[in-house]
Amino acid sequence: MSKPRKLRSRKAGLPPGSLVHIGEIKTSEASYSLIDFSRHSHVEKTLSAAGEFAGAPAQGTRWANVYGLHDPQSLATIGTLFGLHPLVQEDILNTAQRQKVDSYENYLYIVLHRYELKHEPLELQQDQISLVVGRDFLLTFQERPSKTFEPVRQRLRAEHNVLRGGGPGMLAYSLIDAVVDSYFSLIEQLGEHAEQLENEILHQAKPSTLEGIHQLKRCISGLRRDLYPLREVLAALNRDACGFFDSEIQLYLRDVYDHSVHIIETLEDLRDLSTGLLDVYLSTVSHRLNLEVRTLTVAATIFMPATLLAGIFGMNFHTMPLLDNPEGFTLALGGMGTIAAIMLALFWRRKHL
Amino acid sequence: MSKPRKLRSRKAGLPPGSLVHIGEIKTSEASYSLIDFSRHSHVEKTLSAAGEFAGAPAQGTRWANVYGLHDPQSLATIGTLFGLHPLVQEDILNTAQRQKVDSYENYLYIVLHRYELKHEPLELQQDQISLVVGRDFLLTFQERPSKTFEPVRQRLRAEHNVLRGGGPGMLAYSLIDAVVDSYFSLIEQLGEHAEQLENEILHQAKPSTLEGIHQLKRCISGLRRDLYPLREVLAALNRDACGFFDSEIQLYLRDVYDHSVHIIETLEDLRDLSTGLLDVYLSTVSHRLNLEVRTLTVAATIFMPATLLAGIFGMNFHTMPLLDNPEGFTLALGGMGTIAAIMLALFWRRKHL
Amino acid sequence: MSKPRKLRSRKAGLPPGSLVHIGEIKTSEASYSLIDFSRHSHVEKTLSAAGEFAGAPAQGTRWANVYGLHDPQSLATIGTLFGLHPLVQEDILNTAQRQKVDSYENYLYIVLHRYELKHEPLELQQDQISLVVGRDFLLTFQERPSKTFEPVRQRLRAEHNVLRGGGPGMLAYSLIDAVVDSYFSLIEQLGEHAEQLENEILHQAKPSTLEGIHQLKRCISGLRRDLYPLREVLAALNRDACGFFDSEIQLYLRDVYDHSVHIIETLEDLRDLSTGLLDVYLSTVSHRLNLEVRTLTVAATIFMPATLLAGIFGMNFHTMPLLDNPEGFTLALGGMGTIAAIMLALFWRRKHL
Amino acid sequence: MSKPRKLRSRKAGLPPGSLVHIGEIKTSEASYSLIDFSRHSHVEKTLSAAGEFAGAPAQGTRWANVYGLHDPQSLATIGTLFGLHPLVQEDILNTAQRQKVDSYENYLYIVLHRYELKHEPLELQQDQISLVVGRDFLLTFQERPSKTFEPVRQRLRAEHNVLRGGGPGMLAYSLIDAVVDSYFSLIEQLGEHAEQLENEILHQAKPSTLEGIHQLKRCISGLRRDLYPLREVLAALNRDACGFFDSEIQLYLRDVYDHSVHIIETLEDLRDLSTGLLDVYLSTVSHRLNLEVRTLTVAATIFMPATLLAGIFGMNFHTMPLLDNPEGFTLALGGMGTIAAIMLALFWRRKHL
Amino acid sequence: MSKPRKLRSRKAGLPPGSLVHIGEIKTSEASYSLIDFSRHSHVEKTLSAAGEFAGAPAQGTRWANVYGLHDPQSLATIGTLFGLHPLVQEDILNTAQRQKVDSYENYLYIVLHRYELKHEPLELQQDQISLVVGRDFLLTFQERPSKTFEPVRQRLRAEHNVLRGGGPGMLAYSLIDAVVDSYFSLIEQLGEHAEQLENEILHQAKPSTLEGIHQLKRCISGLRRDLYPLREVLAALNRDACGFFDSEIQLYLRDVYDHSVHIIETLEDLRDLSTGLLDVYLSTVSHRLNLEVRTLTVAATIFMPATLLAGIFGMNFHTMPLLDNPEGFTLALGGMGTIAAIMLALFWRRKHL
Repeated sequence: MSKPRKLRSRKAGLPPGSLVHIGEIKTSEASYSLIDFSRHSHVEKTLSAAGEFAGAPAQGTRWANVYGLHDPQSLATIGTLFGLHPLVQEDILNTAQRQKVDSYENYLYIVLHRYELKHEPLELQQDQISLVVGRDFLLTFQERPSKTFEPVRQRLRAEHNVLRGGGPGMLAYSLIDAVVDSYFSLIEQLGEHAEQLENEILHQAKPSTLEGIHQLKRCISGLRRDLYPLREVLAALNRDACGFFDSEIQLYLRDVYDHSVHIIETLEDLRDLSTGLLDVYLSTVSHRLNLEVRTLTVAATIFMPATLLAGIFGMNFHTMPLLDNPEGFTLALGGMGTIAAIMLALFWRRKHL
Repeated sequence: MSKPRKLRSRKAGLPPGSLVHIGEIKTSEASYSLIDFSRHSHVEKTLSAAGEFAGAPAQGTRWANVYGLHDPQSLATIGTLFGLHPLVQEDILNTAQRQKVDSYENYLYIVLHRYELKHEPLELQQDQISLVVGRDFLLTFQERPSKTFEPVRQRLRAEHNVLRGGGPGMLAYSLIDAVVDSYFSLIEQLGEHAEQLENEILHQAKPSTLEGIHQLKRCISGLRRDLYPLREVLAALNRDACGFFDSEIQLYLRDVYDHSVHIIETLEDLRDLSTGLLDVYLSTVSHRLNLEVRTLTVAATIFMPATLLAGIFGMNFHTMPLLDNPEGFTLALGGMGTIAAIMLALFWRRKHL
Repeated sequence: MSKPRKLRSRKAGLPPGSLVHIGEIKTSEASYSLIDFSRHSHVEKTLSAAGEFAGAPAQGTRWANVYGLHDPQSLATIGTLFGLHPLVQEDILNTAQRQKVDSYENYLYIVLHRYELKHEPLELQQDQISLVVGRDFLLTFQERPSKTFEPVRQRLRAEHNVLRGGGPGMLAYSLIDAVVDSYFSLIEQLGEHAEQLENEILHQAKPSTLEGIHQLKRCISGLRRDLYPLREVLAALNRDACGFFDSEIQLYLRDVYDHSVHIIETLEDLRDLSTGLLDVYLSTVSHRLNLEVRTLTVAATIFMPATLLAGIFGMNFHTMPLLDNPEGFTLALGGMGTIAAIMLALFWRRKHL
Repeated sequence: MSKPRKLRSRKAGLPPGSLVHIGEIKTSEASYSLIDFSRHSHVEKTLSAAGEFAGAPAQGTRWANVYGLHDPQSLATIGTLFGLHPLVQEDILNTAQRQKVDSYENYLYIVLHRYELKHEPLELQQDQISLVVGRDFLLTFQERPSKTFEPVRQRLRAEHNVLRGGGPGMLAYSLIDAVVDSYFSLIEQLGEHAEQLENEILHQAKPSTLEGIHQLKRCISGLRRDLYPLREVLAALNRDACGFFDSEIQLYLRDVYDHSVHIIETLEDLRDLSTGLLDVYLSTVSHRLNLEVRTLTVAATIFMPATLLAGIFGMNFHTMPLLDNPEGFTLALGGMGTIAAIMLALFWRRKHL
Repeated sequence: MSKPRKLRSRKAGLPPGSLVHIGEIKTSEASYSLIDFSRHSHVEKTLSAAGEFAGAPAQGTRWANVYGLHDPQSLATIGTLFGLHPLVQEDILNTAQRQKVDSYENYLYIVLHRYELKHEPLELQQDQISLVVGRDFLLTFQERPSKTFEPVRQRLRAEHNVLRGGGPGMLAYSLIDAVVDSYFSLIEQLGEHAEQLENEILHQAKPSTLEGIHQLKRCISGLRRDLYPLREVLAALNRDACGFFDSEIQLYLRDVYDHSVHIIETLEDLRDLSTGLLDVYLSTVSHRLNLEVRTLTVAATIFMPATLLAGIFGMNFHTMPLLDNPEGFTLALGGMGTIAAIMLALFWRRKHL
């Protein structure tokens, strides 16, 4: 059975805003990359240290990406460079955040989750993605390298792409869209897993199947609970009052919002399905018990009269009918067979065979 | 067991607004038809290509209908002709949308679903219908040819019909009404199916019955979840602020809204019924187990004392009572019969037979 | 098991506002009656045709009542006389409406339900009552003759009754109050039925009891679902903005609203009770299974050792103890008895008897 | 099993506002008492008839209390004296009201419930208390004499008590507080009852235990449902717009509101506990079934092989091994014992003993 | 099974605002401590009596802490010194409050809960913490000494800590944050307990396991119910209109609010897990029953035919086949073995072994 979402407690006694990495370290080395782009320019760099993010271009947008969050020192550097509030810095390092959006005067802080499905036992592995959307920059913090944003980088490289001219708002939308899209395939995988379980139940249910159903239910209910805040995040971005997204981008955000609602509804369907699987499993188990008891009943009611008859003719009374009769044995066996046949016929009529 | 609603993921990496058909292709050839009407005129045409939709009439309303959505090129043509936003075009092609209404400056974009009930296994097949309601045009996009809108076409052909003078708003209402009406017969079919299942349970419950119940529950809960957005769509149209529907049509829309609420409530009734069926099924199964065990108990308690008696008189003690008695055998049999009769009587009194 | 509320689909293809009777015809002949009243006058007439409703009195209020809705022609006549919107006319004929209130410029259209409890199988029969409350008239449309409004008619006949001077608003309130009051006795009947079922479960539960519980649950949940809209109707009338009810009547309407809430809460209690009945039933069935298995176990463990002993002394070994002993048989029987007694004692101690 | 809250239907046909006592008569004789108080005076009287309430003091507050509601005539007298609306008079007599507050121009009408717990069967007996809070008077109507308000009377008698100067608002608060406080001990009694049931389940569960659990659940859910309106009443009093309570009393009312929320939450805890009891009960029953079947299985698998062996050596073949052997009998018994020992060992290993 | 939250009823008859300690006395001696701090000063004192809190410093903030609430007299002294409303004083002494915040003109009154997990039986022990946040003072009342606030005291001692300059608002935030943080480790302990139970279920489920699951469920649901008001408290502080918290502290409070939501969601996960545990437990129990019955069935169907055969050859007919045959005995045994082998093979094929 998979484990519940972990809550890693802040080290007791630390004042709020203290920079301490909380959570599993998922990559051994942090890496930094930078894309400066405007409608007509595009520069892509891999940096060796967080300090090199300094010196933004006069024009255009800077997208700074960080993989690996175990080094509070680097984050403090970036925080100072881009003017991040201590609480934001703390939240970026704490990878046990809910999905949320916090708006500050000069930037939006957005927390998103990306999931990966692990099998045997079925478990969802969650990565936290932090986005900071500024007026002329966008920061992304991820726990480890991933391909999720690769298509967006590809599009930025293309000269005439609409992304180039859209600023941090358009870029943020594209990244959020990429994350939400990744849920679609996640849900497809869960759906396929559910179908496998269904086959197993109908053809060879065993106790491990039950565990499988529970793992599935747990994944689904955990994911579902995490998606409600995602929906709220998207609704909040749609209402965004501070002007990080222009009206055209709002239309696109409404579209992503619709997707999130659609994903939640599909999860509800999946949850119904997995609850149905549990019912079918339990009913299958109880059907088997019926079959066992039926077998026992049939066997007992056929053999017990015959055994009694054999016992009767095995009694030692001096005067007993049939014993001298040369056909006696055959008659006795015939009697047993007849009783058994009658019993079977009765069961047949009661649809017990 | 029927499958959960499919979420077909957008091809990862594609920018939003890319025109790609997503979903099963349900008709091999797309077809285009056109109705231009005003209070005093009516022209109906079948077109061979999407481009021919160009050139709207000076007066009156143009209703353009498309069956088959697998050709992004044609859709792009139509989109350009009527000035549709790229996101609208993308949504029309993606047949895995929720029911919704999006309002744009010059048109409303409405997504509706039509259902068909498939038997063995019981499954709902969903078709997406997209409506674009403009100031002087109405576009409908359907996945495949269907008779749902035929009655509306008939009424348009009649010279003095109120539809003729109502413009795109009145036409849109009529189409929505036709779709919502189709749910009524759908629900009647589900109700009849439920009654069949009920008969099966009471007279010859078998494991496949359980599957049937679950398919029914799944259909109902899926449909129910899809109808909540429909209700919201209708409520939103009722509140329509942009003036696509005049106050008279609003009255009619309120009526359709009432219908949708009524349908949802009937589905709740059906869901209660199917949950009740499950309870009755499980209780029937457990009742049968009781009967089996009872049979076994009765048989055992009747034959075991008799067999013991036979065994006792089969012992080889030299000195045993009755063995020499010529009536011994009869007495022994009588004893067995008496014990069996007492046992049966006891069961009878405990209402076990 | 009783059936879910029927949704009778409008004949597909008919334009909205078409007058077609939908639903079971509950009375073979329609009948029309008329009461014109003011503070000082009271005229009561039975009419032979709908057309005779024409010619309202100069002063006072006209209450026109129709029993039987299968004749669309008559309704059209009445509709024209009192200026009813086509949708209202359609809704009056369609006896599968939700309880609702629609407000039009010159009248309120109210749909209410009256229930009758049928036994074996337990089923609620629903009659639709349509009220049209105008400025100086009140129309009531009922599916068949009923005594529900008789007390109101009595009061109208009394010269100094407050109803006489209250106009259509006061009359409408009195009729609604009469309908809501009829729910009280309905719920009392359901409560008595529940108590009967409870007795049956505790003393002689049988499979038909389970069906009875489910019928009860179905009735309760159907009724409960239908009462929520009733509560909304009453809340809406309380808020009535168009001045059909003066502030004094509002007080009375608030009282009826309280009654409806009270009825819903009592239904919730009844639902809890019926769910409890199901639990007790299932637990009773499972208790019986335990008793059966216990009997079987006791019988088996008492007779099997004895039978073994008999079998042992029935073996044909040449050298066996006790066989020559004249007390052997008695000793063997004593052994059997002793073992049985020990077994019974053990069961007794484990509280198995 | 305790009964659901009774709804006593108004006598059909009676006009609203008719004064008819509805409900059980709980005291044979009505009694009337009166307290006139101001900061410096205090007069307490027992009256012999309702009419003597007339003639309020020039200054201060009059608290009129009535025990016993079966005499509509007296109530009409009081109604006239204090100017009560006919609906209020009707509601006071109908002891099947929800808890509620209705505000009229010159007074507030408040309905509260007081409960008493009856044992065997566990049942809640409900008394209705009606309060009418006027500008210079307070009326209380109770179904029968009770000690609930005694402490408040005591405090009124004390010369310098803050109650004396607080007017009807402060007095009303004190009475409401006394009623809400009485719920605390009620809930403690329910909690103790739940603990008793728990002991019974763990040590000697029997069918009557199940009934006990259901009675408890019914009491809790009924009480819980009745407390939601109480909370609303208190919230409404807090918001009181008509100035019956000054801002200091508002603080106290907020405190009572908090108590009501606390009581509801404790009831939720109790409900969880009783649901848990049901699970434990059912699981105990099913555990016992397992024990029975286990006993049966062990007995059968030990004795059946031995019985077979005895049967084999009891066959009448002329040539059989061991029969002539003087140790044959001992060997056979040894074989039986060995098989039984092996069986027991196998069960032991499978943790079946 | 752990007990539901206790509601200790106020002594009946006492007027509101009476100072009486309600609840268990958790420390034998009350202790008082005092910290006066400003940006540049810090004085820490332990006092011997409540009266010594008098005489606040001209500048800076006074934090007065009380451990032990059983002495109403001391509280009255403090109440007078700091001007607390009688209701606040009463609530501080009554340790059965909900978590809440009440705002008064000159101070906020906040009730929080701290929990400790007791094992065997699993139980949550609740301590109430009352905070009174004034303009230049902060009072804390705790039921007994605890280390929860120690880190905050440490930080106050450090000269340049931001806490020093933040006034009562910043201090209050820090204390609240410390309490909320303590929930994280509480939930981790509950999670570990759940994992232990899971192991127990899968490897050696026994009735006490069921009790363990129920204790866990009870703890979780009790805690969850208590956290909803905590969330409301934090939301209310966030909206704080009276200016006890400046905008910077608001940011920090929003962060604590997020934590509380996160904790609630993790509890939901835990609840799902414990419900899943119950299902697995029940299913394990029912699986064992199946195994028992299967064993019984296999044994019975193998031994019953053999026993019958032995009985047949033990009959005393004079003319019976095989008896004279020297191979007869071997043949009979072979027959028995063959039948048993066939039976086993059949079971094998039906996957019954």
